Amino acid sequence: MLVASNRGPVRFVADPDAPGGYRAVPAAGGVASALRPLLVDGGTATPVTWVAVAASDDDRAATAAGASPVVHGARAGDDTGADLDLVLLDLDPDVARRHYDEVSNAVLWFLYHGMFDHVSAPTFDVDFTRAWAAYTEVNRAFADALAARAAPDDVVLVQDYHLALTPGLLRAARPDLRIVHFTHTPFCGPNSIRTLPDAVASELLASMASVPCGFHTDRWARSYAASVREVLGADTEPVTFTAPLGPDPAALAALAATPAATAATAELDRLIGDRAAIVRVDRVEPSKNIARGFVAYDRLLADHPEWRERVVFVALLNASRETVPAYVRYAEEVAAAAAAVNARWATPTWQPVVVDTRDDYPRSIAGLARADVVMVNPIRDGLNLVAKEAPIVSTRDAVLCCSPEAGSYAELAGACLEFHPFDVAAGATALHAALTMGPRERAERAARLRSLAAAHSPQTWLDAQIAAARAPRG
Amino acid sequence: MLVASNRGPVRFVADPDAPGGYRAVPAAGGVASALRPLLVDGGTATPVTWVAVAASDDDRAATAAGASPVVHGARAGDDTGADLDLVLLDLDPDVARRHYDEVSNAVLWFLYHGMFDHVSAPTFDVDFTRAWAAYTEVNRAFADALAARAAPDDVVLVQDYHLALTPGLLRAARPDLRIVHFTHTPFCGPNSIRTLPDAVASELLASMASVPCGFHTDRWARSYAASVREVLGADTEPVTFTAPLGPDPAALAALAATPAATAATAELDRLIGDRAAIVRVDRVEPSKNIARGFVAYDRLLADHPEWRERVVFVALLNASRETVPAYVRYAEEVAAAAAAVNARWATPTWQPVVVDTRDDYPRSIAGLARADVVMVNPIRDGLNLVAKEAPIVSTRDAVLCCSPEAGSYAELAGACLEFHPFDVAAGATALHAALTMGPRERAERAARLRSLAAAHSPQTWLDAQIAAARAPRG
Repeated sequence: MLVASNRGPVRFVADPDAPGGYRAVPAAGGVASALRPLLVDGGTATPVTWVAVAASDDDRAATAAGASPVVHGARAGDDTGADLDLVLLDLDPDVARRHYDEVSNAVLWFLYHGMFDHVSAPTFDVDFTRAWAAYTEVNRAFADALAARAAPDDVVLVQDYHLALTPGLLRAARPDLRIVHFTHTPFCGPNSIRTLPDAVASELLASMASVPCGFHTDRWARSYAASVREVLGADTEPVTFTAPLGPDPAALAALAATPAATAATAELDRLIGDRAAIVRVDRVEPSKNIARGFVAYDRLLADHPEWRERVVFVALLNASRETVPAYVRYAEEVAAAAAAVNARWATPTWQPVVVDTRDDYPRSIAGLARADVVMVNPIRDGLNLVAKEAPIVSTRDAVLCCSPEAGSYAELAGACLEFHPFDVAAGATALHAALTMGPRERAERAARLRSLAAAHSPQTWLDAQIAAARAPRG
Repeated sequence: MLVASNRGPVRFVADPDAPGGYRAVPAAGGVASALRPLLVDGGTATPVTWVAVAASDDDRAATAAGASPVVHGARAGDDTGADLDLVLLDLDPDVARRHYDEVSNAVLWFLYHGMFDHVSAPTFDVDFTRAWAAYTEVNRAFADALAARAAPDDVVLVQDYHLALTPGLLRAARPDLRIVHFTHTPFCGPNSIRTLPDAVASELLASMASVPCGFHTDRWARSYAASVREVLGADTEPVTFTAPLGPDPAALAALAATPAATAATAELDRLIGDRAAIVRVDRVEPSKNIARGFVAYDRLLADHPEWRERVVFVALLNASRETVPAYVRYAEEVAAAAAAVNARWATPTWQPVVVDTRDDYPRSIAGLARADVVMVNPIRDGLNLVAKEAPIVSTRDAVLCCSPEAGSYAELAGACLEFHPFDVAAGATALHAALTMGPRERAERAARLRSLAAAHSPQTWLDAQIAAARAPRG
């Protein structure tokens, strides 16, 4: 089996004590986090080849030195990583930057999350023509690396929007392979897809439609299929499958029991006291809709004076893409929205909003465990793992307020409360309902949420991709 | 037959010489312009009741005085207007403002044209709850007025996004009536419709789906139907029909022959000289994508030095919604984009872009008649009548460069050149192709464009609505 993703499962750091002089540490990113425990640290029944981009000089040197990709301590008694062949592509930095920043993140991410202000962006000019050539070149490097290493009829799992052209290029070179593509973001519908230059939309969708394409929820699969029919013709019927991802409950439980999480819990207990706690955990990313979450909380405090002094909103936020101007502006907007709530309602003994940007995963899990209410309100989100982690780790039967625009919502609907991402008046009503919910309904909903959130694991998600790859071809 | 539209076919001005002391003059707006010649000035075979909003004190006084809605001189020998019952609703000004500004234009117009920057807008709070109540109240006033005046089984044509709730309210009160709704804007798809508060989306689509709904092109009808299924349930199959509107060729020819148009042509001849002329005619409206049109022209001049000094871009722009901040900012952006092109390329004897904001319809028609190339590049547009007026009045076999996002494009594709609204590099290529096209191909395309543009008239569009209203009910 082969896996391709832009970021690999680990990154390497120099360590004179490690074999080869480099030590693997977990890489950031949802794809890597989901697959690493299964395919790297856990060992696999069959050998796996994983192709990704070398993200640093250390990555390049470690690869040359044959360093093990297994994270130290993750696999008992076997630290060789012999059943994983990690291939880190050594790309020209300008080409890699255009592929990652200028196409993947500045265009496809914004398009699929519905974040373009079409009046002013995007404008595709000769810079984009060059960036698209770089995107194509990187996708071809992946396809070449996969084609060179795959045995006949091998399964190939191509991950995410960075690699939308790889399936088509690989399939042309190696029609024998069983390729699937999986998109971790939302997908846009037929009106939005036409924002792309004509040739770009056609190439991208023709490549994807040449293999089965997976999504986290039916809605993104339907949007994708409608876009394919719009661009490639009404008689094109692409093969899609839906395979939600869920957290690994055992791994979460282990994390929640670590000293770091325990210490964070104690600190949160002191901060929150006997008040009710609304908690959110997010990257500072415009699609996460953090500022409007504060506006909805402000509306709650305005409409329901009884909550003043009696609730704390703990926002555990991780910095994201801090060199991109739109993200810097958004971080400022988020900080200003939080400050506005505090300026309006704070008392000498009460700070209504506490923003914590320490970027600490055990602390985030401790926050979700400690929450009375969890807020997940993205304007659009491929899945949103926080919505599933929270019920699994909750120690207080937390009520989940979740946006229908999160991919996870389709699985959790009924057990969570709907939290409309743009309607802050409705959001305030949902928060009030969550805070006033009686213990019996809380317990009943929490039990259902736990069961729904644990219904899909990284393993079932991986198995669904392999099954789609091996399904008989139409 | 009854017609309902927010703006009436005429507005009234005080005139001591006119019967009743008020004289009707044509009202602005596409719906009024299309229907007035047919239903008011032309006289009709059957009596028509037209319900609209009184837009001024003069409107209210003229209605009370029984002034004739026929525009002076429009109907030979008959100035009584006896076959039109014009009902101008006297609304509370705050209610009217919330209905028109806060819901219709600030929300529905932006939503249907894909113009929201979702990261920052919209945010629905208690202000919007109040605005939606006003929208509902105005729609109910229309429904009440229509219900009170309609004879059994009468045909009722409800026009545009300002009146989306009127069909449902009217149908509940008068199930006997043959009601249709016609949307003159685009319509958004299932992902975007969820931007609205849940109850708003449900009410709006349930009302529309209670009657046959018409659109200018199949794409908007499909978007609407998909939105209905998303919000109201997958088994809801709304009745839609597509009825494009076209200009009245005879009226355009008459206008082009007026002294005002002739004088404008002479002025344009002096301005353009023996250079090639690219012409656009638009309201200064963000959906019209005027700034990116200048960027594409800039790219043409950069990539093709042979066009410097040899072409003039004449932009005939009419001010629009000048009290709305987003429109003021957009007008500034448009002016800056034009100035940037002139700053970069102008010579002592050549101004590359000439912007004319005199808002003069005969002059606009003269400009389209004089053009060598016509640019129509909206980011999204329900129809775009300019794309059809231009071929009909052209005296130079103008090449039409048209955005696929204009509703008219579906009818004109093949005869026009595609002008991608976001891809300015492709736009420059299209302009160069248009400017270099040989006379034979120009003539051949112009002939096809003329024929396609004249295929639908206001009369055929009106007849299609009436036919949809009278069609047997599923």
